[in-house]
Order: sequence, then structure tokens, then C-alpha cells
Amino acid sequence: MFWSKVFIPTLKETPKEAESLSHQLLLRAGFVRMLMAGAYTYLPMGLRVLEKIQGIIRQEMNACGASELLLPALHPLELWQKTGRDKDLGEVMFKFQDRRGRDLSLGPTHEEIITDLIKNNFSSYRQLPLVLYQIQTKFRDEIRPRFGLIRACEFIMKDAYSFDQDEAGLDKNYQLMYEAYKRIFSRCGLETLITEADPGVMGGKVSHEFMAPSPLGEDIILLCSKCKLTRAFSREKIENEEGSPHAGKEGNNSCPKCRVNMDKVNTIEVGHIFKLGTKYSQAMQANFSDAKGQLKPLVMGCYGIGVSRLISAIIEQNNDTDGIIWPAQVAPFGIIILPLDVTDQKVMQAANSLYQELCAGGLDVLFDDRDERAGVKFKDADLIGVPTSIVIGKKSIEEKNIELRIRKDKSTQLIPRENAVKFITKLLS
Amino acid sequence: MFWSKVFIPTLKETPKEAESLSHQLLLRAGFVRMLMAGAYTYLPMGLRVLEKIQGIIRQEMNACGASELLLPALHPLELWQKTGRDKDLGEVMFKFQDRRGRDLSLGPTHEEIITDLIKNNFSSYRQLPLVLYQIQTKFRDEIRPRFGLIRACEFIMKDAYSFDQDEAGLDKNYQLMYEAYKRIFSRCGLETLITEADPGVMGGKVSHEFMAPSPLGEDIILLCSKCKLTRAFSREKIENEEGSPHAGKEGNNSCPKCRVNMDKVNTIEVGHIFKLGTKYSQAMQANFSDAKGQLKPLVMGCYGIGVSRLISAIIEQNNDTDGIIWPAQVAPFGIIILPLDVTDQKVMQAANSLYQELCAGGLDVLFDDRDERAGVKFKDADLIGVPTSIVIGKKSIEEKNIELRIRKDKSTQLIPRENAVKFITKLLS
Repeated sequence: MFWSKVFIPTLKETPKEAESLSHQLLLRAGFVRMLMAGAYTYLPMGLRVLEKIQGIIRQEMNACGASELLLPALHPLELWQKTGRDKDLGEVMFKFQDRRGRDLSLGPTHEEIITDLIKNNFSSYRQLPLVLYQIQTKFRDEIRPRFGLIRACEFIMKDAYSFDQDEAGLDKNYQLMYEAYKRIFSRCGLETLITEADPGVMGGKVSHEFMAPSPLGEDIILLCSKCKLTRAFSREKIENEEGSPHAGKEGNNSCPKCRVNMDKVNTIEVGHIFKLGTKYSQAMQANFSDAKGQLKPLVMGCYGIGVSRLISAIIEQNNDTDGIIWPAQVAPFGIIILPLDVTDQKVMQAANSLYQELCAGGLDVLFDDRDERAGVKFKDADLIGVPTSIVIGKKSIEEKNIELRIRKDKSTQLIPRENAVKFITKLLS
Repeated sequence: MFWSKVFIPTLKETPKEAESLSHQLLLRAGFVRMLMAGAYTYLPMGLRVLEKIQGIIRQEMNACGASELLLPALHPLELWQKTGRDKDLGEVMFKFQDRRGRDLSLGPTHEEIITDLIKNNFSSYRQLPLVLYQIQTKFRDEIRPRFGLIRACEFIMKDAYSFDQDEAGLDKNYQLMYEAYKRIFSRCGLETLITEADPGVMGGKVSHEFMAPSPLGEDIILLCSKCKLTRAFSREKIENEEGSPHAGKEGNNSCPKCRVNMDKVNTIEVGHIFKLGTKYSQAMQANFSDAKGQLKPLVMGCYGIGVSRLISAIIEQNNDTDGIIWPAQVAPFGIIILPLDVTDQKVMQAANSLYQELCAGGLDVLFDDRDERAGVKFKDADLIGVPTSIVIGKKSIEEKNIELRIRKDKSTQLIPRENAVKFITKLLS
């Protein structure tokens, strides 16, 4: 695609409203814009990253035997009253009436909604196990929206739900998801720590959080430097519930195995999985008939990933002073072609022919067709973080070379033009 | 994919709440479920159709040089107050406050939001023309949600916006979109009539509606049987504005060219394009500096498609007494394999090996692995409307054949097993 068509409004100045590095870079690189506190527009570059991440998630969910659906964002409040979670979640839920006086809410999550769906469309153990997921927009009335996509009022989540006959079935699906989550984050180029966590208002007995280490992270994890054991820091829960950090009582923070003090690591929660058990199915009478014809409540698990938040977490872990360094699998484009002088016909011909060949090979190529100085183009290419640049100037054409530049270490190499497509295709695969 | 995993809750009875044929079929075939009046869950089969339609739309939009982004659904009400459309749209907009007292609305459309975005991220004529689009969820507080996906409170729309220097640029983009719309509907297997229409609250001077003929359609179009000229029926607007049909005053309904009475055709509006001109850019000071450095308001167009509504319109035009007949390009699956006896190992082996080969060839294959009678499987296959069935039973294995069944005309033919994959691949391409 051509830079002039994509709409990539990069900024020279760092916007004042940006409170974190990832937030600054998302704005400066022209990936997102704030509509109001907590609500962001994904500009074309941001949307491309979002779609790459969603593609990875879909592959891994489908590989677990999960099937994708899409639940509404508008909910009848009465379903939330059945479990009492309208009260548990309190002001975090947007609530209002429609013109006919129906009490509605915007979905902050979907346990009640999917349990109701299954209850009304399900009968026999022969249809179990069943795993459903969606990638969908959630709404939460955050008291302090912060850090751009990290804590927003409107955000994109992947939520999956498993339905089983018994605890053994749940354990199996939970384990499948646990492993899928590890693969998803790793494929997104994200380092995560996994820790057992308090299920909180979600309910159930067991839950695990997937936490991405980052200085801006508001959730503190304890990590044993010796045995790599992790544990939630005991002050954390007080902070989360009251919405603002203050000094809580610190618990015993030594490693139960090695007896040494564990390190505090700031992290961003990117995934959370729960063994819900029968909390929702019992409250909402979502039953199945077992092999003997007896009615039993469905045994449920739920599995969330903060999809839009992932974008920020990835940037927090992958950047340098010049901008973002996208891991290849989630980069908005794999390659950017930089013709150094767009008024030079030979340069543009060479750049165009390479562009056509790379696109024909199925690669994601961005073509910087702007009439800008080379310095501006290099700076912008570094800022937006495309993994590979190809520089095309008069000299390289004469010498029948192209100059390849790797964003991560800024190394450059000359490649003979005739081998270029083969070389780049191999590099990016 | 396997039927048992996909979650396709077909129904034998026609649900009472369904007011139209497409609504009945969507429910019976297990494609959607109602959460409440006006809000629907897309079950996996419904979501697959939605994604096929979205894929076609994306291809055609990108081919017009449009770039995709994603705008928020939560809007600050103040942006709507700048154009006065908060009043024009009135109760159709969901409005509420967040816990900090901000006045918010859920986006019924996005002209104000995108104009604000461009105003803040745009300066020079050199960046024009620019065409942006999104596929996104809209919210409208309909007084009478009806006909399932046809008139819903939460629905999916493709909305595109063009920005130009002058009317000539707008005319060019408008024409590109007009042609793209024709291709989109045709690729979706939908017959449409195009008619000039009143721009209504959207504003601007020129607009065209793309209308799908259907008995349930609430918009009446006049069609000259001789010259095929179309015209909006003069009573239509009264109905739309007041939200319920009643007898309006009928205008002169004869063809201006042929002087014969035009036929009334009931239609569903599936697309609407508008030359907005400078209505929004002037109200919101969205200007650009021209080649002489003078500030001028951007000249805008907007282009909508009711994506979720398209699903219903397609079904209204493509069905028979047994169920849906999906046009190939939007079918949830291209092929369904029906092993007649899942307890017979030979049948299952034959079915499985064909399934693997077809999937490896990149085809969308549904495998009916349910332990159900052949009659149930045939009925369900007809109901869900997959274009091609492959029947595998003992006899066909012995004779080294497969039985191919075309949903549309229910014709069957025997194909030698050894040619099956090649034959089917060619049939579906």
C-alpha cells in the first residue's frame, strides 16, 4: 500500500496527554487517536496490528476446537440481576434505559449472556464439550481511564467459554487454553509471567493471570530469581478494588521454596483464565441431561485476553529511543520501501517494480511515496517500527543493488537486485 | 469443521417471534439467536456468513483506494451538538452519562466523529483525496425493532467517508463507490435496484439508495417495467420519519419517460451513498490549505452498507420451502460431507479421507459427524443451505463413487472417488 493512501499522521512532538511510553509511541507513530478519555480510534496502522493479533488468537482458539460467535454489546439488565453481578460490578457497568423503558447495560464481559444462550439451546451431554469464543468490544465505565489502550472504557477482548459435563472435562479444556495462551503471547513477541490469581468477581476456584512485565504495569507480581516461581503481590488486590494505588499491608513476600525475598515486577495483565465451575449455570439454571437422563448444571470455564491492551504491552516491551520495533508476526507491514527521491523517474521505476514483485509474493509492503526528504522518511520508518526497510536511491540502482535495513539493530546490507525478492521472502518467513 | 464442534442449534419448529421468512430461517437454521428485541447473537454459522460478506466489502473498498480504520462506538455528545444532529436524530440516539458526568452517546453513524478526526490530523491539499472506511457496530434506539437483523438496535455497518478538495474530486470518488457497490451486491448474490433518494438528516444534495427487492421490504420503489427507470415512491418518506406505516398522500407515479404507471416494488435498503459536500466540514471547521495556502472546507461524501441486514436480504432472495440457498461466495461452508452411518467404520474412514483432502485444498468443509438418521441430516443440510453436499454411504464406497448433491436444484450425480477432489474444487472455484 502507498503511504499517501493509508493515512499515517505521524507527529514530531510527543503529545502531552500521553502518560506512558506505549501511549506516546502509538500517538506519535499515527496508530491511534483519542476521541475522549478512554475511547480510541484505531487508525489504519493500528487496525492492521489489531488484525494481526486477532489472526493469531483465532488460529490458536480454532486449534483448541473452539468455535467463534459474536454476542451483542447491548444487554438486558435483568440477566445480570440473576447472578447479582450488576451489583458486584456496580458503577463499572454503563446502565441506561431505552426509549421504551427497558433497563439496558453495555457488556463489560459476557458470562451471563453466553450462559443464557447455552441454557436455551442445549440439552444433552452428547453435545459436550463445547468451547465458544468471540473477539468483541467491551465497555467499562472506568473511573480513571489511563495509559491509552491499557485502561480504556471501550476496548477489544477475546473471551472464550467452555462447557463440560464435569470437573475432569473442565480441567482438560482449561489446560488446552493455558497452553494456547502461552503460544499466543509468544507468537505476539510478548514475554509473560504466569501466576495463580484470585478469581475476584468472576467467581470460581482456580484462575491464572498472564502478566507482561512493564514499568508502567499497575499489577505487581513477585518473582523468585532462583526458581522462577511467581506469586501475586499481596498489596495488589487492595489497589485494584479501590481504583487508586495506596499503601496496603504487605504480606510475606519470600519464596516458599527457596526462602529468599522475591523480586517485585510491575506487569500488565494481558490474559486471565478461570475455572468458573457451576457459579453461572446454577444461578441461571443452565443444565444438561447426563447419560442417565439426570439434569446437571454445566461446568464452565472462561478465558479472556485483552486484545487492544496487547498492542500497548507489545510496544512497552519492543521499542527504542527512535520508536516502535514490531515483532514480525504482528507488524502492520513486513517491509517498507523507501525511494529516496520520488521526483527521479528511475528511482520510482525501480521502487515500483520491486513493490509489485513483493506484493505478488503475498508480502505486506508499505511504499513511502511521499515527496519528503530522506531524513524524514528514515525517521518515520523507525518510528512506525516496520521490521525491514528497503532503501532505493540513484547509487544503488547504478550498482544493481538494494539496501536492506533491519529496524531492530539498524544493521544494513547490500543485496543484489536480482536476488532481492527471494532473499526478503526468506527473511520474513 | 465438525458439526458437533461448530454449535449449530437447528430447530424443527418455526419460532413464533419470527416475523419474516429470513428471520424464521436464520433462527431455524441456527445462524442467529435473539438476546432481546433488536439485539442478536451471531452463532458460528451466522458469523461465518458475516465474515464472507465483510471479506467481499473489504476487497472492493481497498480496490477503490480506501483505507480501513475503526472508530469508537462511545461518543462525546458535544461533537453531535456541533452539527445539531443530536436533535435531528432525537430519540434514535442512545444517550447517557458516565460516572464522572460526561454526556455520552452510542454512535448511530459516524460523520461527526470522522470529521473531527480529520480536522485534527490533516492540513494540506497534498494529502487529498483520502477515503477511509470501517466495518463497525452501530446503535440505534429503534422504536419498533423488527424482522430480526433487518431493523435492529445493534447492527453492523460499513461506513466509508471521502475527503476531497472540490466537487470534481467528490464526483470521482462517488462514482468509484457507486460502481464498487454494484459489484459488492452482485458478488453477494443479491439483486438490487438503484434509485435517487432524499438525503434526509444526512444532508448534502445527491444520494443514491441500493434497494433489494423483497416482499417484507418497508421501502417502496417505483419501477418502470418498460425502461427500468426507478424512483422512490412518494409515500415512503412519511412512513420512515414517523416510524410506522400509514396512508400517506400518493404522488404522481407514472414514468416521466414512458408515461405508463410504474410498478410498486417492496425493497430493503442495503446501501446508501451521499454527496455530503461541506455540511460537516463547515460546521466543524474541518479545513485544508489549498495550493495557494488558502483555507477551504473539505468536500465530503459518505457511503454506507447495512452489513448485518445484508444477511437477511440475501436469504429473502435465496430460499425455497426447505431452507436457505446460499450464493457460493457468502455461504458459511462451500461443502457439507454427510456420512450416512457414523457407526460404520468404513463409511467414516471414507468420509474422513475426503474431508482431509478437501480441507488441504483450502476449501471450507463442514463434516456432519452427528449420530443422526440420514433423513435428519438431509433436512438440516437443506435448511442451512450449504451449496454442495457429498453423501457417503456403504453402497457408494463399494462402487468407488461419491454422490454429489446441489442444494439449489437438488440435482444429484455420481462422481468417481478418484476424481472427486478435482471435480469439487473446480465446481466451487
